Amino acid sequence: MNFLTRPSAHIQTAFLSPQHVAEIVQTRGLAQVFAGMVEAIRSDFLRWSEFDKTARVASHSANGVIELMPIADAKTYTFKYVNGHPSNTLRGLSTVMAFGVLADVDTGTPLLVSELTLTTALRTAATSVMAAQSLARPNSRVMALIGNGSQSEFQALAFHYLMGIEELRLYDVDASATEKLMRNLAGTSLRLVKCSSAADAARGADIITTVTADKTQATIITPDMVVPGMHINGVGGDCPGKTELHADVLRMGPVFVEYAPQSRVEGDVQQMPADFPVTELWQVLNGSATGRTSDDQVTVFDSVGFALEDFSALRFMREQSIALGIGEPLPLIPALADPKNLFSALGAPVPALAVQPSMAPALA
Amino acid sequence: MNFLTRPSAHIQTAFLSPQHVAEIVQTRGLAQVFAGMVEAIRSDFLRWSEFDKTARVASHSANGVIELMPIADAKTYTFKYVNGHPSNTLRGLSTVMAFGVLADVDTGTPLLVSELTLTTALRTAATSVMAAQSLARPNSRVMALIGNGSQSEFQALAFHYLMGIEELRLYDVDASATEKLMRNLAGTSLRLVKCSSAADAARGADIITTVTADKTQATIITPDMVVPGMHINGVGGDCPGKTELHADVLRMGPVFVEYAPQSRVEGDVQQMPADFPVTELWQVLNGSATGRTSDDQVTVFDSVGFALEDFSALRFMREQSIALGIGEPLPLIPALADPKNLFSALGAPVPALAVQPSMAPALA
Repeated sequence: MNFLTRPSAHIQTAFLSPQHVAEIVQTRGLAQVFAGMVEAIRSDFLRWSEFDKTARVASHSANGVIELMPIADAKTYTFKYVNGHPSNTLRGLSTVMAFGVLADVDTGTPLLVSELTLTTALRTAATSVMAAQSLARPNSRVMALIGNGSQSEFQALAFHYLMGIEELRLYDVDASATEKLMRNLAGTSLRLVKCSSAADAARGADIITTVTADKTQATIITPDMVVPGMHINGVGGDCPGKTELHADVLRMGPVFVEYAPQSRVEGDVQQMPADFPVTELWQVLNGSATGRTSDDQVTVFDSVGFALEDFSALRFMREQSIALGIGEPLPLIPALADPKNLFSALGAPVPALAVQPSMAPALA
Repeated sequence: MNFLTRPSAHIQTAFLSPQHVAEIVQTRGLAQVFAGMVEAIRSDFLRWSEFDKTARVASHSANGVIELMPIADAKTYTFKYVNGHPSNTLRGLSTVMAFGVLADVDTGTPLLVSELTLTTALRTAATSVMAAQSLARPNSRVMALIGNGSQSEFQALAFHYLMGIEELRLYDVDASATEKLMRNLAGTSLRLVKCSSAADAARGADIITTVTADKTQATIITPDMVVPGMHINGVGGDCPGKTELHADVLRMGPVFVEYAPQSRVEGDVQQMPADFPVTELWQVLNGSATGRTSDDQVTVFDSVGFALEDFSALRFMREQSIALGIGEPLPLIPALADPKNLFSALGAPVPALAVQPSMAPALA
């Protein structure tokens, strides 16, 4: 028994740092964490209608955006804080940083504050695999991985562990990113093939995964690179003005999205008319829509990242944290013997005499 | 020099617990904290047009509500998480619990995670005093304090220290709440008069402060209790369906609010037609609207609590935290030698062999 499971009359918010999440991954094993997260996301996607899918709240500025992504079912509320600042790497900072909170709907108590920078990379790769399990050919063995930045190892290993991918064809405009990826994957049994262009990487691939970072209307994948039977896992086109797939690629086969109202604004389908047909992934998972119907079909998963995936990820990490006793208490809420006596939390006798407010400027 | 001021290439998010906030209040003194917070709120209200005043995002459930309240200027972004669950006290929990985050707009870096349960009580009282400094008679010495729960000591002492209030006339439907308030204020030079009803409390008062907790269309203050020259500081009528003032009281003199679009939904003015005249407080502060114009006018501050006040409070607490070296580092964001190498934060060698996904259910 540890602080996470010890019964307490007082509020105990748990905290998971990146180090704690790394410890969970090391203890469970990365493959098992991916598999567990796929199952967590799948089971929540199968309860799609039970969620209050509030729109995200974005605060835009000159350099980037800060967003809050809340979602709740009848029992659990979560939100994620995430920024997107492309020029951050010039300052030695990550482009994307994230954290989140899981709270109890019945009482409003925050139960967990967690890092979500690492966890988002894990859940994004898990979501990609979950989609590919319904959309890619089961005999897929070769994946093109275009964009070899922060997300690439997570995509590579999730597809290696859970989809049987044996060969990766790598390309990035920044050769040092590919070198970094190859170093990080050196200990695996993956065959790593460094390619000279996106078209070169796509050659012979069963699955094309795009995780490029440039915030531009890029055309990374053009129709000439796509052959019958391919599945395209488009991860990097995920906000207004940021796309990776040529519009004609989206017309080569059925397009699947997480949540259509959001994807039409943020996804690669932002290039298409409002009535362009898309299928929501949860419908494929519950059998109300079909995924891949033949071996020579082209399928596209236009991924943008949805609040429900963070909900599932936070729920999964909280379960692991409790089961493994990994994490720390975070004293976020006053522990009050009498909840109506908030003043007692100041914990000091009240001075008898008023002090002149003119002292205030000295504090500024 | 401490961790809060030490230069670092890596991200350092600071954390303030209720204990840290109490330590700041004990070190600075409660009167100076109120005074400093009034000045922080005033200076931000004077920059009103510089703020991106996003609407709050509410998630309603059977027992209550969880809200996110974001706001930003060109430099600083903040949000507050706050719940409202009236039945929580039956479980020994607070009705309202809150925390917040202050972040750097330029990079999206979260700079501070802070408790806001105590801090909200401080900023609410500071806002009430700031309004009263423009709206109440300067020679006000007697205040009725109706509702003697969590917020009451903060209102009592802010008005004692900064407005010269010498006598409090106390009433609560729960006599034990009044007893608790009287115990907490026993060390002050305030004269405390226990009253038998709201009308009894209002008798002879210069200012009436209402901070009742019931989530109902209550009519705590009726026109017969109000005499010329009174200022009404209505704090407890702060969400849809929760009011304290009779509609005719709102017609007795000018009504002042924080942010009209929000107050018309959440404040006591929710009872009034959409064109009922209200004046936003920032206009009084910058001189573009008048506050009290005569000694026999009745004035009403219909307070609901606005995100900008939390912005000011977080900014103020961060300044105090840095100046006093009070607080702790919170490792919320991975510290990466190479920001493009997020995978390195997992900190462990990658296993060479895939593990069967069928192990996953064992984790659930």
